[in-house]
Amino acid sequence: MASSDRILRNVLASEPQSPIPITYQWLLPNTRGLENFFAVHHSNDKGNKPPYPTPPSSPISESPPATNNSSQDVKTAPSTTSETSNAPRHEVSIFMAATESFSKRNTNCSIAESLERFRPLITSSRDNGFSVRAYISVALGCPFEGPDVDPHKVAELAATLLEMGADEISVADTTGMGTAPRTRDLLKTLSSAGIQNADLALHFHDTFGQALVNTLVGLEHGVRTFDSAIGGLGGCPYSPGATGNVATEDLVYLLHSLGIETGTDLKELSSIGAWITGELGLGSQSRAGKATLANLKRIRDEAAGQ
Amino acid sequence: MASSDRILRNVLASEPQSPIPITYQWLLPNTRGLENFFAVHHSNDKGNKPPYPTPPSSPISESPPATNNSSQDVKTAPSTTSETSNAPRHEVSIFMAATESFSKRNTNCSIAESLERFRPLITSSRDNGFSVRAYISVALGCPFEGPDVDPHKVAELAATLLEMGADEISVADTTGMGTAPRTRDLLKTLSSAGIQNADLALHFHDTFGQALVNTLVGLEHGVRTFDSAIGGLGGCPYSPGATGNVATEDLVYLLHSLGIETGTDLKELSSIGAWITGELGLGSQSRAGKATLANLKRIRDEAAGQ
Repeated sequence: MASSDRILRNVLASEPQSPIPITYQWLLPNTRGLENFFAVHHSNDKGNKPPYPTPPSSPISESPPATNNSSQDVKTAPSTTSETSNAPRHEVSIFMAATESFSKRNTNCSIAESLERFRPLITSSRDNGFSVRAYISVALGCPFEGPDVDPHKVAELAATLLEMGADEISVADTTGMGTAPRTRDLLKTLSSAGIQNADLALHFHDTFGQALVNTLVGLEHGVRTFDSAIGGLGGCPYSPGATGNVATEDLVYLLHSLGIETGTDLKELSSIGAWITGELGLGSQSRAGKATLANLKRIRDEAAGQ
Repeated sequence: MASSDRILRNVLASEPQSPIPITYQWLLPNTRGLENFFAVHHSNDKGNKPPYPTPPSSPISESPPATNNSSQDVKTAPSTTSETSNAPRHEVSIFMAATESFSKRNTNCSIAESLERFRPLITSSRDNGFSVRAYISVALGCPFEGPDVDPHKVAELAATLLEMGADEISVADTTGMGTAPRTRDLLKTLSSAGIQNADLALHFHDTFGQALVNTLVGLEHGVRTFDSAIGGLGGCPYSPGATGNVATEDLVYLLHSLGIETGTDLKELSSIGAWITGELGLGSQSRAGKATLANLKRIRDEAAGQ
């Protein structure tokens, strides 16, 4: 938690304003992690705010969603002054697995134990005004159990987490094994189990190159929240060979091509992706990002040559 | 032509047998290129075959198609003995552009001049028993004229080429600018113009990461022939920033995920892709290929560790 603590302190010390408020999601392993999280929030309050944000009343945001790991159904925390209305929001995230093998290797407990561990965390988060996002990992393929993860198990987990008070379920294809037909089956099973599309996010990895195909299946099903990472950063240490999340640039290129507004600028995203992957000494994994920058360079070069 | 000549001579000297006959497509720039092509074929004949293959009678192949730049609607050239039935087939390919700017810069003539240049080549190819495949490049985006290439222009070109005797039209998204909606529009326009799906191939580049999404659109429209290149090799010198064709491994992964048989083995394809891109000093561009090999390595490592 040390590193997350420091990041949270820095964010709170100088909250970045943004036309579309940024939602930070803080992945917390257990109630102890949650107490640390509260403590950092508390220590940052300087007498001019309540110790914790008050619970959100109702969804009031009319802003388009930020596409980077952000919920579309943004629930704005009431702010004390209008100056802070574009300040970041903070959400609590928790991480589950759809298979027993992955749960045991990744979180050292069974799925049932994992649920019981998170129950008080979800309650406490919400009591303190923080939305909770629950990830169900390996939902479309497990490195230990193979591609045929039971969609009914995923639906059961999602329903239980929502009943416990989770605000949103991010169904994650951690291994990138997801295919169009199995993504469609899973979404149908989730709908049949009463899970609303508005409570769902889809989280694809482009390991086998299928992330955008699966995104299209999700869009056709009515899901409107998709996770991604700039430059295709990310990965999973417990999922060998798994590459990063689908690149935000690639996702945005697809969404824009379909006429969907995202509130983001592909050229800016592409520049940011090239910058951050460069800082990290990695190459950008985004095809759309690299091609967008190559086009911009060609236009600049031609203008300079004339 | 020197280099192509040498390759053709080598292929003819030791024709690789294959359970699914390989179709070689020879891109010829003009009738002089065609005469060279005939000459090489002629010089290879050693008295036990007709000087040129006799014209194909009818489509008789029941084999699944090879996916690598091969037509699904394979027209088998009659062979003199049953031993040679799995010998490679040879097709003539020609290259057009859907925009005047690209035509002038790439082939140094207008589209109309290009058509007149190819008319005798198509006739002569067919008279000598060779099928003709015509590529219409920049059909979904031109580096000089932008993304909005007129689909009616593509349809008009396709119809003219088929009337001239071309056996198949490969509609090529040379720049990778193609999007799902524009791919759908183009295919609808082609259908409205009377172009049959059986006479069409789609040729996508993954420059902006949209190749598989566009493939899905093509499949839904009923097209069954798709071009690809192992490891994502290829590119276009006249289309700056354009990366290679969609990787065969990624395409095959998608097709298999949809339950479509291709007659290919993804593990073998992935190994071949890694080998050839290594020999060329390039990295494989195939996500499915790299992930497949990473999985195989993990399984081997685990087996060795036990």
